[in-house]
Amino acid sequence: MKEYEEVVTQGRKAATLNGILNLLTWDQEVFMPKGAIESRSSQIALMAHMIHEERTSKGFRHKLEALIDLDSGKIKHKGLTDLQKSAVYEFRKDFLKQTKLPSSFIKEFSETTSLAVQIWAKAKKENDFAAFAPSLEKIVKLNQKKADILGYENHPYDALIDLFEPGMKTSKLETLFSSLENGLSSLIKKVQEKPHVNDAFLFQTFEREKQILFGNLLLDELKIDSECMRLDESVHPFSIAMHPTDSRITTRIAEKNFMSSITSVLHEVGHGLYECNLPQEHFGTPLCDSLSIGIHESQSRLWETLIGYSKPFWDHFYPLLQNTFSKQLSSVDFDQFYKAIHNVKPSLIRVDSDEVSYCLHILLRFDLEKALIEGSLSVKDLPHVWKEKMQELFGICPQTDSEGCLQDIHWACGDFGYFPTYALGNLYAAHFFEGFSKKHALWEKDISKGDFSVLKTFLKEEVHCHGRRYSQEELAMRITGRELSDQTYLNYLEKKYLQGK
Amino acid sequence: MKEYEEVVTQGRKAATLNGILNLLTWDQEVFMPKGAIESRSSQIALMAHMIHEERTSKGFRHKLEALIDLDSGKIKHKGLTDLQKSAVYEFRKDFLKQTKLPSSFIKEFSETTSLAVQIWAKAKKENDFAAFAPSLEKIVKLNQKKADILGYENHPYDALIDLFEPGMKTSKLETLFSSLENGLSSLIKKVQEKPHVNDAFLFQTFEREKQILFGNLLLDELKIDSECMRLDESVHPFSIAMHPTDSRITTRIAEKNFMSSITSVLHEVGHGLYECNLPQEHFGTPLCDSLSIGIHESQSRLWETLIGYSKPFWDHFYPLLQNTFSKQLSSVDFDQFYKAIHNVKPSLIRVDSDEVSYCLHILLRFDLEKALIEGSLSVKDLPHVWKEKMQELFGICPQTDSEGCLQDIHWACGDFGYFPTYALGNLYAAHFFEGFSKKHALWEKDISKGDFSVLKTFLKEEVHCHGRRYSQEELAMRITGRELSDQTYLNYLEKKYLQGK
Repeated sequence: MKEYEEVVTQGRKAATLNGILNLLTWDQEVFMPKGAIESRSSQIALMAHMIHEERTSKGFRHKLEALIDLDSGKIKHKGLTDLQKSAVYEFRKDFLKQTKLPSSFIKEFSETTSLAVQIWAKAKKENDFAAFAPSLEKIVKLNQKKADILGYENHPYDALIDLFEPGMKTSKLETLFSSLENGLSSLIKKVQEKPHVNDAFLFQTFEREKQILFGNLLLDELKIDSECMRLDESVHPFSIAMHPTDSRITTRIAEKNFMSSITSVLHEVGHGLYECNLPQEHFGTPLCDSLSIGIHESQSRLWETLIGYSKPFWDHFYPLLQNTFSKQLSSVDFDQFYKAIHNVKPSLIRVDSDEVSYCLHILLRFDLEKALIEGSLSVKDLPHVWKEKMQELFGICPQTDSEGCLQDIHWACGDFGYFPTYALGNLYAAHFFEGFSKKHALWEKDISKGDFSVLKTFLKEEVHCHGRRYSQEELAMRITGRELSDQTYLNYLEKKYLQGK
Repeated sequence: MKEYEEVVTQGRKAATLNGILNLLTWDQEVFMPKGAIESRSSQIALMAHMIHEERTSKGFRHKLEALIDLDSGKIKHKGLTDLQKSAVYEFRKDFLKQTKLPSSFIKEFSETTSLAVQIWAKAKKENDFAAFAPSLEKIVKLNQKKADILGYENHPYDALIDLFEPGMKTSKLETLFSSLENGLSSLIKKVQEKPHVNDAFLFQTFEREKQILFGNLLLDELKIDSECMRLDESVHPFSIAMHPTDSRITTRIAEKNFMSSITSVLHEVGHGLYECNLPQEHFGTPLCDSLSIGIHESQSRLWETLIGYSKPFWDHFYPLLQNTFSKQLSSVDFDQFYKAIHNVKPSLIRVDSDEVSYCLHILLRFDLEKALIEGSLSVKDLPHVWKEKMQELFGICPQTDSEGCLQDIHWACGDFGYFPTYALGNLYAAHFFEGFSKKHALWEKDISKGDFSVLKTFLKEEVHCHGRRYSQEELAMRITGRELSDQTYLNYLEKKYLQGK
């Protein structure tokens, strides 16, 4: 069908440019000589501009309008298959989102946040919230404006979440997260009543070279295809893809915290596999895009936590780990190790927190950023309210704003609406994993033998290969027959942290 | 000046895209997962297309026409500085070259050669010239057509050389190369009368890791700024730059031939320094472009041979080399080593040949490709004539075409006119080096102490920083007050290979 093919051709061009943009970003974090930062910024800005032009051009609008009515969202072309219709619906959504924001606004937003990131980095270093406050005020206002331009029915924050988790609403998150908060708070109290665990041996020195070797051994054992994924080192671990055949992941090596490198590799493998398994025959269409940030995060958290902290996983890997780090671990038996990595300690810092308290950090940020956007919290009160909330949720309180409301980069980047996806990722991960473990009752046996093929196939067939064909709700329903709830996740945590399973 | 700035802005956009294209190429050879080759090809094709559009657009023509008359080449704008005039002259030359070839021709040329490279690789492997001959015939015809479209006064080959060595003419090369051939032939005879040198110790096993370490030690000792250049490994060594602040070089590691990695690093350092020292304030204009392939090659050969095979260089580096490879070299003294690396043995293969006979390989190719283009040699006679010429020039004759006329990739790529630049590079290198050694009589003392700063500054100030401001002739004249000749190069070879200096 000629009309559909024309839309796809233009979509493919934009997606190809986007792949190139991603290579520029990857290289910048991994191998680029430092002196090249200015020229790299120009290259990235040029690519971003070209992609935006391509996706919002009049030519593209005309081609798309031959298939669908942009106002009503009704399919106009009679000859589309169901799959093509799904693609066209999503093409329209993207087009409307991208054309609503005028380029003058995009420019102002990107200039403000790019400056704000620098100011934030200095303010965090010097524990000087006052220095960052004017930037944050500007960014909150710009996000309010963004919400107005994009439009919403009930809450301005709806428009912002939608950029990262399409279709999600503030009200739905409030219900989900308030139940989750209750569950987690009571769980943490119970976990903390348990006897103290000695985990000091996890923080010995573990040689850099061996950590890198073990990272690659993980990929080998998981049978990750080296013809479409590679692992490197960077300051912050990340995953990025140029195309389903070209996915790159990184890890961070800390000599005094080797588990951080292992969990990073597993986390990024989860992201990377999602990208590799998107259906490349639909490259350039939304059918070859990941569904949402929350679903992406579900894939990384599934590998990092549900697998990477599971008994069967370590049944297979602990002997290999002991073999690599015999000096550090030969006298530590499996049970000691397994208990130690499950130690629960409330932390002031989100990225250092354990699995049980992690989501509480997100819920705190969700409440605060929602309040900032709706105007019920002012920027100047943020440090104070942050501390109160920390005390309330965790029973600990940061002494400095650097360890408080200045700890994350997200707000400086302008990314209001992003944080909830971290919690959603955990909920979806538990939800999908329930579907998997019901379908494959013997999964523990497979994985303790180092066979990950059944899990990989399940995720590929049930999640990855659909791209954006189904909504998050539809996907959740397909996999378990039930809607997403916090209960599956809470059950998983209770089973592990209270019953030690 | 607004009109000049407009041209530069568009030039900068094309140059930025070109830098991005170069990163795609670099990544493909160095780190890209193999499975990504198809998507990478699409990315490269898209970038190449966009660069061509940018450089040949009507908008660019109009802007350029405000400054210069495209037909006559006369400057129209009164307010240009001398430097800006140089840039505008070169902008015009590029524009005319790029707009002459119709896109249908470019497409046919690139499709034919991209297929031919695959056929050539198989033919070379299987020693089957007949399989490659039809492709080569097509490529010769396309190059004849190219020459006709581009235009020439005396010889169709002129139009082809001009693509790599602007301004160079067939007749000038004939004079230069015929004198060079006489000189080299008589030199080789004399060199071969000298007693045989034992160089077997050079071909022991040298550990890969240590070769890589020594490559990086070379960069450190040469005080190459790691903030704008990096060294990696690839199958074929190469150098490529994204911007003067972002130059990448590679080397090839062969366990049984460690000198090949050292000479590759030095060769690519020469190319890389040229790119790093181009004046970045003129990025996007021809003032920030390298002058020609021959001049580029002069920089690489200067570091590889005039420096990298010199006594003072090894005075400094041989102790470091012995230290790195003590097992292999502790019993080899300086004189043995120095004699061994200067061993002269005629080789059938260009890339394996010694410094003395290298240019003869080029002269042979020059004669043959010129004859193919003018039609005085037909493709079917090529293998036969190649063998005859080898016998005549080297006194040896290949048994197979794989070691004969199938050995190089250049013709399959369609690059007729490229080979002469390899010989020119050597001549220019000797010419520039004469200028340097006259100006800095104590250079040997500096370099034997490991101080390369005077040489690096000389090359930067006399060659690199001018970009395309001067022609090759002007540059040669500025540096020594004389025109390029083969004699300086022959003198250098004689002094080294006959007098052992």
